[in-house]
Amino acid sequence: MKRIIYGINPVKEALKAEDTVDSVEKIFVSGRRKDRLIDDIIKEARRKGIEIKETAQDELTNIAKTSSHQGILAFMSGEYPYRGLPELIEIWKKSGERAFFLLLDSIHDPQNMGALIRSAHAAGAHGVIVPKDRSCPVTASVIKASAGAALHTPIAMVTNLREAIKRLKDEGAWVYAIETSAEKSIYSLDLKGDVAIVIGSEGKGIRRLVMEESDFCAFIPMKGKVNSLNAAQAGTVALFETRRQRDGA
Amino acid sequence: MKRIIYGINPVKEALKAEDTVDSVEKIFVSGRRKDRLIDDIIKEARRKGIEIKETAQDELTNIAKTSSHQGILAFMSGEYPYRGLPELIEIWKKSGERAFFLLLDSIHDPQNMGALIRSAHAAGAHGVIVPKDRSCPVTASVIKASAGAALHTPIAMVTNLREAIKRLKDEGAWVYAIETSAEKSIYSLDLKGDVAIVIGSEGKGIRRLVMEESDFCAFIPMKGKVNSLNAAQAGTVALFETRRQRDGA
Repeated sequence: MKRIIYGINPVKEALKAEDTVDSVEKIFVSGRRKDRLIDDIIKEARRKGIEIKETAQDELTNIAKTSSHQGILAFMSGEYPYRGLPELIEIWKKSGERAFFLLLDSIHDPQNMGALIRSAHAAGAHGVIVPKDRSCPVTASVIKASAGAALHTPIAMVTNLREAIKRLKDEGAWVYAIETSAEKSIYSLDLKGDVAIVIGSEGKGIRRLVMEESDFCAFIPMKGKVNSLNAAQAGTVALFETRRQRDGA
Repeated sequence: MKRIIYGINPVKEALKAEDTVDSVEKIFVSGRRKDRLIDDIIKEARRKGIEIKETAQDELTNIAKTSSHQGILAFMSGEYPYRGLPELIEIWKKSGERAFFLLLDSIHDPQNMGALIRSAHAAGAHGVIVPKDRSCPVTASVIKASAGAALHTPIAMVTNLREAIKRLKDEGAWVYAIETSAEKSIYSLDLKGDVAIVIGSEGKGIRRLVMEESDFCAFIPMKGKVNSLNAAQAGTVALFETRRQRDGA
């Protein structure tokens, strides 16, 4: 079966992304949904010599297995290009910046996963690290929820998240687990150095062994009676606090 | 038709919320899904004399019109208890705190709406203000996405968002519209005073007239190639930056 991506942003970003531009094989677009954004995508695809096929709205829904395709989808060649952890570390070192990674423990919801990848990208993280057996894979719906950011942000799928944390610590990074029950506030952390942030799933939090391997646990100070944020919101606050500190703002 | 709410957090919070505790009429719970969280809810409902009915999983799905009910739903009496803007202002003044409001312009997606209400509550906002004709109403799915926070946070549905902004300015609040194209960074704002934050929908942003009525526009500094966040993530960053400044962190 062909790997597909759908939605305006994902297809647009696939054409822009250096690593994936050669993997867009064919674009399917609905005649009914003609707007400027889709026109721009078609123009860019033509320029790159990619085949474009006009396809009925219903047929797009059949191929995408969802009606959230916004009238456009693409066949991609090969698998989603996961990276290895060493490659992510290399990307960081080449950047000349202090390390900035996001680790996701047991995020299974594609919407949350996509939102977190998007926030990581927008905050300037060097990559996202997820455990193979406790994560949503990077599907078309994750890419859609990330607005295409999953095509620009290197994502490593590792066998063992704890080993990945050890490796990041060996490379000099401080690993901070974000947990409501922690004793330190995230605002007491110095996030300007080499850091990796661990976010767990809302229901179960971060697994004990993953937490133990981390250097510190920290919470996001909040008010109110519900007293929690979902994983995507909590991760976004931590990522942008890191960005803020690095920008000296 | 009965108004319903569904999901573990919403039903739990409905029983806790001062304004809604008397409006839970009856709880339906699936025999199949027995866990500690549901047991706690049943215990609390019994203590309050609320009727509980064991109901098949499928029937819950029929009533809720979604399978996201997590094995529990409740019939509520009356409508969702929207407040008026004067009531929100009174809540702020009684709190003895500096004003902290969230205004949502044209947020139609229940997931985003729910996430924003949850973040507003967790950040300690006094209320959320939405325009009647350009907003998702506070449905069961919004309440579910807010993890029940919509039952604790006062929400005003106003006829005209621009008029609401004028009123807040008359009361001494500064109104900040969050927009990617703005010239000021949110980190350059003093958010410790009386403030209201305006967030627009991802696709269309904040309407021109709403923007013009605001005191300042501000952007969230970001990196990356996609260079935007969805409404729920952007709103969360702005809300927690406000919280951070107020806590002096």
